[in-house]
Amino acid sequence: MIKSRAAVAWAARQPLDIVEVDVAPPKAGEVLVRIVATGVCHTDAYTLSGADPEGIFPAILGHEGGGIVMEVGAGVTSVAVGDHVIPLYTPECGQCKFCRSGKTNLCQAIRSTQGKGLMPDGTSRFSLDGKPIFHYMGTSTFSEYTVLPEIAVAKINKAAPLEKVCLLGCGVTTGMGAVMNTAKVTPGSTVAIFGLGGIGLSAIIGAVMAGAERIIGVDINPSKFEIAKQLGATECINPADYDKPIQEVIVELTDGGVDYSFECIGNTKVMRSALECCHKGWGESIIIGVAGAGEEISTRPFQLVTGRVWKGSAFGGVRGRSELPGYVDRYMKGEFELDTFITHTMGLQDINKAFDLMHEGKSIRSVIHYDL
Amino acid sequence: MIKSRAAVAWAARQPLDIVEVDVAPPKAGEVLVRIVATGVCHTDAYTLSGADPEGIFPAILGHEGGGIVMEVGAGVTSVAVGDHVIPLYTPECGQCKFCRSGKTNLCQAIRSTQGKGLMPDGTSRFSLDGKPIFHYMGTSTFSEYTVLPEIAVAKINKAAPLEKVCLLGCGVTTGMGAVMNTAKVTPGSTVAIFGLGGIGLSAIIGAVMAGAERIIGVDINPSKFEIAKQLGATECINPADYDKPIQEVIVELTDGGVDYSFECIGNTKVMRSALECCHKGWGESIIIGVAGAGEEISTRPFQLVTGRVWKGSAFGGVRGRSELPGYVDRYMKGEFELDTFITHTMGLQDINKAFDLMHEGKSIRSVIHYDL
Repeated sequence: MIKSRAAVAWAARQPLDIVEVDVAPPKAGEVLVRIVATGVCHTDAYTLSGADPEGIFPAILGHEGGGIVMEVGAGVTSVAVGDHVIPLYTPECGQCKFCRSGKTNLCQAIRSTQGKGLMPDGTSRFSLDGKPIFHYMGTSTFSEYTVLPEIAVAKINKAAPLEKVCLLGCGVTTGMGAVMNTAKVTPGSTVAIFGLGGIGLSAIIGAVMAGAERIIGVDINPSKFEIAKQLGATECINPADYDKPIQEVIVELTDGGVDYSFECIGNTKVMRSALECCHKGWGESIIIGVAGAGEEISTRPFQLVTGRVWKGSAFGGVRGRSELPGYVDRYMKGEFELDTFITHTMGLQDINKAFDLMHEGKSIRSVIHYDL
Repeated sequence: MIKSRAAVAWAARQPLDIVEVDVAPPKAGEVLVRIVATGVCHTDAYTLSGADPEGIFPAILGHEGGGIVMEVGAGVTSVAVGDHVIPLYTPECGQCKFCRSGKTNLCQAIRSTQGKGLMPDGTSRFSLDGKPIFHYMGTSTFSEYTVLPEIAVAKINKAAPLEKVCLLGCGVTTGMGAVMNTAKVTPGSTVAIFGLGGIGLSAIIGAVMAGAERIIGVDINPSKFEIAKQLGATECINPADYDKPIQEVIVELTDGGVDYSFECIGNTKVMRSALECCHKGWGESIIIGVAGAGEEISTRPFQLVTGRVWKGSAFGGVRGRSELPGYVDRYMKGEFELDTFITHTMGLQDINKAFDLMHEGKSIRSVIHYDL
């Protein structure tokens, strides 16, 4: 049992509490990781808000981290002490029906225990005064030391700066992967990206890497346009500037619609606009954003019968252990940058400020450094 | 100007009127075709019902025919007098943005005039006592002689029996093509087909040809199960036999859901069931049925984010001039049969009986032979 600084969510709608928790050693098939840095993502805020139907408390949130393996449990063979890793909220066991299908990254090996805030054996490694605290998304990166299943860590290039590539643990990979893995955007394409937060900006980077010719950013907050253009958007439009539905505006702008669109917000009305701005005959729309519980998307089926395709993407369709290390390598080769995303850095003691900045729309990503 | 026996729809919700109409000769780029046989399809009934927002009267309906070229207009090069052809309500010009894309069969070259019941020059070739009668879907196969744009006929093997392969002009190709072209069902797949009318049965044939291992037919009318099994369904289920949503039943039956599903009815609630019975991670649902005007599909976006894909298909995604002749050839090689679909044959004078049989659910297809 070791002591670890952690930000505990005792209940929904309360500030995180910075305390020292107890972390039990890794059991068979598990690893102990020292988190060097972690991003604070909207999904953490969503769960903390109480709106997440799967949210349970008390829990240690956080799922966008980078760290170093400190100890391995029995039978662990794919990583060793000292390895640099990115925790994976979407694991990759390589053995389940989903992994074997070759068609999806949605490994289901530990889905049921992960959804209950527990390790695969049905217990928690976190406690305070002997009372268990739940894990979150199988990662709990808001604790300096965390325990993860071996299948839920991606071993990456040791030269990569963990305080930057931690963003590949969620947001950046989600946006880039949706473009490159899920949609497989082709060179010369026209793309529309709805929502220019961290995911949308990552999707822009992905579109640039995929060779898209025209990249249209869409947001009701024009203050985001400059950074979007800096990253590669060829134009940005604000739905509030038009007196007709934005999908009609885009169809006109693009002589029939876009080849690919991406919804990076989680707004079901925007999901419809994103589908309907696609080109008849072949346009594909990818839902990335997570909608509120119970909300539904809708459209006329004619939209699909006339050739549009409606898809979704989780973690960018990226298989964590087999594909994520390649994303880190591409970053190290300079194929894309991450600095633009990191608008704030701070120590764990300031983590509630990171949530405030997010709610105020003032940050793309705040990154917590455990050594600050 | 020649005389032609035709069934004219003077107005919605009235029996068709069998009269002799005048047919003007083909203009440049058009052909005159003698229709040998034509199926009577639900889409004809839909328009005749008055529910079709694009429906205009008076018109000569019919779009599932087979015939022989009798005369060609100036500049026609791809077909000649004596050629056997299937009229195409989805033409293939080979030159428009859609045809050139290589991604869709939805040629738009003559879309606007076709939708108005007119030939590409904005006029009609049909008249009675000098008053024009509108074309329908660019085909009007309920007239023994009809005029079509050259780009709207597929030249087929002369040995093929026109009174059978006429069904490839709509229903059979729509179902088979959705399976083979749009979904590209792979060998060993599990498939669910909702609605066991002509389209659904054709989808079953397509699934057999594609090598699907398990083909689940779904219909609330169990009298359709025998023929579905005869054509290759491995099992049939009736939603009325279960006290929970049919998508849940299918997910349980198939250990997680089907690889592909097809909605062959036009019911938006069934479209949702068809999507939601697909396997997490990779299941694809194809909408084939045409819903009523203004109706919408809906689902939780989570269904897509977790890997299901929602698509649609029109005329089976088949390019009429370049691909339909191959379907005829496969029929001639015995790869599939059409006799099962043809439950009734009759002369043009009995065409209203064909509509009655359809409304009473007593026919799969009635085929009108002009020589009966």
